[in-house]
Amino acid sequence: MSGAGKRVVLLGATGSVGTSALAAIEAGGFSLVGVAANRDVAALAAIAEKHRPELTVVADERAAAGLSDRLAPLGLASAAGGAALADLAAMEADAVVLAVPGFAALRPALAAVGAGRVVCLANKECLVAAGELVRTRARAAGATILPIDSEHNAIFQVFRDDALDAIERIVLTASGGPFRTASREAMAAARPSDALRHPNWSMGAKISIDSATMMNKGLEVIEAHHLFPVGPERIGVVVHPQSIVHGMVHYRDGSCLAHLSNPTMVTPIAHALHYPGRGSAPVAPLDLVAIGSCTFEAPDEIRFPALRLAREALAQGGVATNVLNAANEVAVAAFLEERIGFLDIARVVEETLEASVGRGLAVSTLDEVEATDAEARRLASLSLAAAAPT
Amino acid sequence: MSGAGKRVVLLGATGSVGTSALAAIEAGGFSLVGVAANRDVAALAAIAEKHRPELTVVADERAAAGLSDRLAPLGLASAAGGAALADLAAMEADAVVLAVPGFAALRPALAAVGAGRVVCLANKECLVAAGELVRTRARAAGATILPIDSEHNAIFQVFRDDALDAIERIVLTASGGPFRTASREAMAAARPSDALRHPNWSMGAKISIDSATMMNKGLEVIEAHHLFPVGPERIGVVVHPQSIVHGMVHYRDGSCLAHLSNPTMVTPIAHALHYPGRGSAPVAPLDLVAIGSCTFEAPDEIRFPALRLAREALAQGGVATNVLNAANEVAVAAFLEERIGFLDIARVVEETLEASVGRGLAVSTLDEVEATDAEARRLASLSLAAAAPT
Repeated sequence: MSGAGKRVVLLGATGSVGTSALAAIEAGGFSLVGVAANRDVAALAAIAEKHRPELTVVADERAAAGLSDRLAPLGLASAAGGAALADLAAMEADAVVLAVPGFAALRPALAAVGAGRVVCLANKECLVAAGELVRTRARAAGATILPIDSEHNAIFQVFRDDALDAIERIVLTASGGPFRTASREAMAAARPSDALRHPNWSMGAKISIDSATMMNKGLEVIEAHHLFPVGPERIGVVVHPQSIVHGMVHYRDGSCLAHLSNPTMVTPIAHALHYPGRGSAPVAPLDLVAIGSCTFEAPDEIRFPALRLAREALAQGGVATNVLNAANEVAVAAFLEERIGFLDIARVVEETLEASVGRGLAVSTLDEVEATDAEARRLASLSLAAAAPT
Repeated sequence: MSGAGKRVVLLGATGSVGTSALAAIEAGGFSLVGVAANRDVAALAAIAEKHRPELTVVADERAAAGLSDRLAPLGLASAAGGAALADLAAMEADAVVLAVPGFAALRPALAAVGAGRVVCLANKECLVAAGELVRTRARAAGATILPIDSEHNAIFQVFRDDALDAIERIVLTASGGPFRTASREAMAAARPSDALRHPNWSMGAKISIDSATMMNKGLEVIEAHHLFPVGPERIGVVVHPQSIVHGMVHYRDGSCLAHLSNPTMVTPIAHALHYPGRGSAPVAPLDLVAIGSCTFEAPDEIRFPALRLAREALAQGGVATNVLNAANEVAVAAFLEERIGFLDIARVVEETLEASVGRGLAVSTLDEVEATDAEARRLASLSLAAAAPT
């Protein structure tokens, strides 16, 4: 049951997923040998002081001096910047936990898979934007990607690779977010504070807004397509407001195997860290009697067009999902800054997809992925300007 | 996906589970090489005519001539009686499906495990009455017992033998039966027709009454104890009126893996027949959105004392569960004949357990098990007489 001796690297340590990862690492007796965060030097230094990793990295180079001032006197090595982050992701370890949000995770993800690591992947954007590239590099280097996004980890736990023919479909559950029962009018008037109020999960701002638009579930359908050998038409979404059932695999014999847990990221992270064994985690046991009821609804793609947009981008193939992701990141940031309304997010994404002439093309290098991402962000900004309140 | 070439023997072919087994056998392309029923010669002969097994057996010797009259002209071999049934259970086959209800399944079960077969076990009474004996014989002969009782098959599908330390507990769900919300007064007045009206499952009379008293769940706790290396205190029961979630395994990392399906025996039987592969089955896909809601309640051991009695018998060990099972079979038969009231069933079982002086002793032979069974039936009959309406 103990993880003693397993060397773990954690990127994104100060965020919501990172905090859960630290809980799983500490409870499991794992050894944190490398740790990184974006720019919260105080929180990162505190983690480093506690775990004494071999290397601590801050992504934002402007924070380099602040970090080394804290760690050097303790004899702890530190570094800063994107190259250092990639080196950290590739360092000798038994598992690399990628808890960095957004497209920014792509370079460290490629570094980790390129080094043949076991990558515990919480980030969905890098698979959405560059799933083929990540998978090709992982295969070439013998890396293993273990999903720790809760829905994908759930499916992974009940997915039988040796019985692909017997799998009917996989299902991701969605809480439906804070606007599950809201009218289009109420959604049009929603402020960031309304959209950030997720009913079940405590998460970062980007994913909370994605959850409110249900783009999060759209991104997860694309992510699932890259993680599991199942066609898009066999990846379903069911709205389940209680967030207890996280994912399901339906088999052709009528069996549906499901993963249930309290809504905490500690469970999927502990599962991945202990994999292929199974350990314990510092979480409250699931009490279905106390929960009382689990309900299930079909998603409403009229009120939540993001789901439809994600499926269309996936069907289009090529860089369409790369464009989708970039436009969504731009639109979500603009909404959080109150530059556009809530319903404009999907509109910006849709307009960007339509304006992106090369969206059906395939790309095979990181440079091409990043160029596509940059061009999509430029197009999304144009769309933003049109959507902005006058 | 095809079961072609797998030789299957089916005992109890004309009952409710047997009918489901035939559906799974036919859809899976399995070869039915041996078949048996208790006494329904017409139905048994029709099955034999369709599948042309190597041997057809009727348990009731009085029906021997009727069966051979039907089958001999077709060149199909038949036999009758308990010894022939045991021979059939031990015949060369890839799987033996034991769909015989009650204690009567014990001899054929021992014959099948003694021959080292893969035994797909729907019958719970033989494990309740003689679990140690069945397991000892199975181990010695290298037999495999695959549960097809839906709750145990569910748990089997999500139980990791290689992670025993990581298992917190296993949970059997119970529909709660037709009297889930009934008062003790209403239960006292219940007629067999009321008790036979199961909300979700179409089953035989014995198991339907056991479901109404919740003795069925008590027997299943004992069965689970023999099938899975988990102590009685870690075998839970949750009432789930919709009968969609059949069983769960809670792991110490907070993961709860569950098996869901429509309430049909075809699914667990197809699972066991295809095991260790996985195939398809002629069942409607599970539609959670159409089902809408799954609810969970704690069982009420005051209104349903059978659950408590089963746990006490299991805790007592030795032949106590053997006595429990015999008394229950006698009491259920008496209730079906309207010789006692519904609440008398548990009373007869409790009085029989109290009257059985040797209930804590262990036994190691079939003769001892049968002697215990006979003595318990005698004691139960005495208790019946006291309980009978005057």
